[in-house]
Amino acid sequence: MFESAEIGHQIDKETYDAAVPALREALLEAQFELRQQARFPVIILLNGIEGAGKGETVKLLNEWMDPRLIQVETFDQQTDEELARPPFWRYWRRLPPKGRTGVFFGNWYSQMLQGRVHQRIDDAQLDQAIGTTVRFERMLCDEGALIFKFWLHLSKRQMKARLKTLQDDPLHSWRISPLDWQQSKTYDDFVRYGERVLRRTSRDYAPWYVVEGGDERYRCLTVGRILLEGLQAALRLEERPRRQPHAAPVAASIDNRGLVDSLDMTQTLDKDSYQQQLVAEQARLARLLRDKRMRRHALLAVFEGNDAAGKGGAIRRVTGALDPRQYHIVPVAAPTEEEQAQPYLWRFWRHIPARGRFTMFDRSWYGRVLVERVEGYCSQADWLRAYSEINDFEEQLTDAGVVLVKFWMAIDQQTQLERFQEREKTAFKRFKITEDDWRNRDKWTQYVDAVNDMVDRTSTEIAPWTLIEANDKRFARVKVLRTLNEALEAAFARK
Amino acid sequence: MFESAEIGHQIDKETYDAAVPALREALLEAQFELRQQARFPVIILLNGIEGAGKGETVKLLNEWMDPRLIQVETFDQQTDEELARPPFWRYWRRLPPKGRTGVFFGNWYSQMLQGRVHQRIDDAQLDQAIGTTVRFERMLCDEGALIFKFWLHLSKRQMKARLKTLQDDPLHSWRISPLDWQQSKTYDDFVRYGERVLRRTSRDYAPWYVVEGGDERYRCLTVGRILLEGLQAALRLEERPRRQPHAAPVAASIDNRGLVDSLDMTQTLDKDSYQQQLVAEQARLARLLRDKRMRRHALLAVFEGNDAAGKGGAIRRVTGALDPRQYHIVPVAAPTEEEQAQPYLWRFWRHIPARGRFTMFDRSWYGRVLVERVEGYCSQADWLRAYSEINDFEEQLTDAGVVLVKFWMAIDQQTQLERFQEREKTAFKRFKITEDDWRNRDKWTQYVDAVNDMVDRTSTEIAPWTLIEANDKRFARVKVLRTLNEALEAAFARK
Repeated sequence: MFESAEIGHQIDKETYDAAVPALREALLEAQFELRQQARFPVIILLNGIEGAGKGETVKLLNEWMDPRLIQVETFDQQTDEELARPPFWRYWRRLPPKGRTGVFFGNWYSQMLQGRVHQRIDDAQLDQAIGTTVRFERMLCDEGALIFKFWLHLSKRQMKARLKTLQDDPLHSWRISPLDWQQSKTYDDFVRYGERVLRRTSRDYAPWYVVEGGDERYRCLTVGRILLEGLQAALRLEERPRRQPHAAPVAASIDNRGLVDSLDMTQTLDKDSYQQQLVAEQARLARLLRDKRMRRHALLAVFEGNDAAGKGGAIRRVTGALDPRQYHIVPVAAPTEEEQAQPYLWRFWRHIPARGRFTMFDRSWYGRVLVERVEGYCSQADWLRAYSEINDFEEQLTDAGVVLVKFWMAIDQQTQLERFQEREKTAFKRFKITEDDWRNRDKWTQYVDAVNDMVDRTSTEIAPWTLIEANDKRFARVKVLRTLNEALEAAFARK
Repeated sequence: MFESAEIGHQIDKETYDAAVPALREALLEAQFELRQQARFPVIILLNGIEGAGKGETVKLLNEWMDPRLIQVETFDQQTDEELARPPFWRYWRRLPPKGRTGVFFGNWYSQMLQGRVHQRIDDAQLDQAIGTTVRFERMLCDEGALIFKFWLHLSKRQMKARLKTLQDDPLHSWRISPLDWQQSKTYDDFVRYGERVLRRTSRDYAPWYVVEGGDERYRCLTVGRILLEGLQAALRLEERPRRQPHAAPVAASIDNRGLVDSLDMTQTLDKDSYQQQLVAEQARLARLLRDKRMRRHALLAVFEGNDAAGKGGAIRRVTGALDPRQYHIVPVAAPTEEEQAQPYLWRFWRHIPARGRFTMFDRSWYGRVLVERVEGYCSQADWLRAYSEINDFEEQLTDAGVVLVKFWMAIDQQTQLERFQEREKTAFKRFKITEDDWRNRDKWTQYVDAVNDMVDRTSTEIAPWTLIEANDKRFARVKVLRTLNEALEAAFARK
């Protein structure tokens, strides 16, 4: 969920200086229009990693917009008055009225996350808090409110560097974090529970925007753009927004760098190392699948990737040392008539492995947010809701002990071209290349966006994506096998 | 939530026999149209009290409709195959395809309720199960499914009688309930957790229908009518239903008897007993409010009722023996400009009592589902969603220790007429009667429906309604005071 906010997004000074004046003017205009219409309030929630720039973002908003129309609310210790009433009373009374903007700092999300990280509440209670929040936000949106939820993110390394800088800076050294962020464990817990919270509370009418906080210019410009687009779209609506999907529910990165572009595609493996490692990993997998502890688990691997990225080859290497009775491969084709008469996920439900079993999906339920999205086979509403449906589905799997490993096998455009041409030249490979493949290739950038969004929204603490740099087939195959083995071992190691 | 399914609804044989042929024909027609269109599946969930006729209802549906297009699914013990997969797999694989109807007996609701009643799960885990279910049903409805959820109900007395009959009947004595329903505690727990589950999972696109099960004819006709109306409405839609609100989300009773009509309005109190009891209850209230245990609670009383039912008089008697600093009265009038710029509930949030305090609302947030609904001041979507928003709000109150007592003060039409006329005759009372009052009176039956729906949907295990028979003012005032005192004492008695 946070992967693409850890790749070091940045904006250079020139680009920034060129973009800011127009953005500020447009934001101001939208803000006045908001006051003029006075049809709905705007609520901005700021959350995320310590040091990722929450405070700076508030300052910026006050600088860029008219501060008389923005109320910044911070919620630290509860006052006596607040303690004497229901927990949400503190938020109820500080909601911005129609036409105004409220920035909520240390809001209901901070409260539940801190509670969980400090073990004042358990998982079930966290889920209860999440449920209350979802109902509260739905009500606010039904009443017309426009809610923006920002998660400002830093990788652990970035955070440590940032806290160090702040500490060394006499202007900032007074800032002592409420959570002991110096500890690795605090960061890890915060991120883990943060993923759970974001996964459960992202709604098309109130989505989370994860923004990398390391580079100030990138952070400011991104937050500003998202606010502007969302605000303008809501102002254009004839009615109050009322649970309308946000204009830009999935934000393309403004520095045009996504997770997939940031992979190191030069990684290779020479033939000898390959042979050696392949055999070792294959043997390890065969052993793990026969392990007694496998009875409590199932293994489910999803293979997605660019056309010609080598999914089939990788799957054959995975099964290389396995007894055919040990595994099951599900090639996903067009739905049958029977499948079309059922909910979208039904055709995958029916192939879920029983405990003790191993199933590989050659393409999967992610088709909805990849090919169906790009080719327009389903409506925007359909693929937008698919993210949370998929997350719910995968949670059911992992709760039941399924070890879920998801691969995106990535190749670059040049490699794909070479493989396509090679396929056309080789008689026995010609069946593998069709008109569709060439057409998909023309939509390369649309697919890149779809993949980035998919990973951002469905790489969760329970079912992360593994991106496979697949320009080199040998490197890719070994990485696939090793990832499977590590996932199984990690699952076996948990009590 | 179950109050109006405990008043002894019944349909006589003649009415039944006259109604059934047309209903059956229409149901069959709708069923064939459903198959013809094959655009969406219908899922019927049957839950409720043991002995309330779940099995009989299934038989009936098979009899009335074409059984080839209905699949009845029962879920008892999980099979080995099911145990090896996620808990919902058993439901996934038995969903009816588009064009068909599935009747789910012993479904996800039975599972969570039995788990909670038998203390295999706690409250937080029950809420988790509820959350999973809400997401699952939303997904099904987004995919087009039309879901009917029936809760067949019996009062405890009715249930005991029914189980006795079954036991004595050689044809039925083999039926042994999985839960030990003979025990009062089982019934009480089942109803209590049932209320919680229904409150949390009723959605306009998948509402619960609570149907009294004691009289077979009433039960059959009600279930049949609800199915027919819902099905016909969905078939008329140009698109798949997709989370459309049900046609008849709040069902008027087919025997034209609601909760309010079933009150015994002849109850009175003579002057002497009144004086004596009034003073005693007033003193008791004053004492309870000064009790040390009051520090952990607040008392909030909501007064709603027919015009001229005596709300003001009752409130004055409540405060009769109290120090004015001890209580606060909130008369609810038209919202101010500031209040109009906020969510609907905001103007009530601001008057929530702090711990230790006592606040009375003379009219309340229920205005939305009463006057606003009847007079059309808000859209149907708005008042429909208000039920769950109100339930959420009241849950926050009671969770925070607020003792919430809600009064509906009911008088009959004749009494109201006399009081209106009396007001017009008496100079100092004339200000109390306006054109509005006479106009509201013309909408008497619409208000009766609204009140019945309100009580059905917001009388919950945490915040039940108390209906006050208020034709006799003395009787009413003492009952109000006594109810407040009993609620406080019950709260103090809980650890």
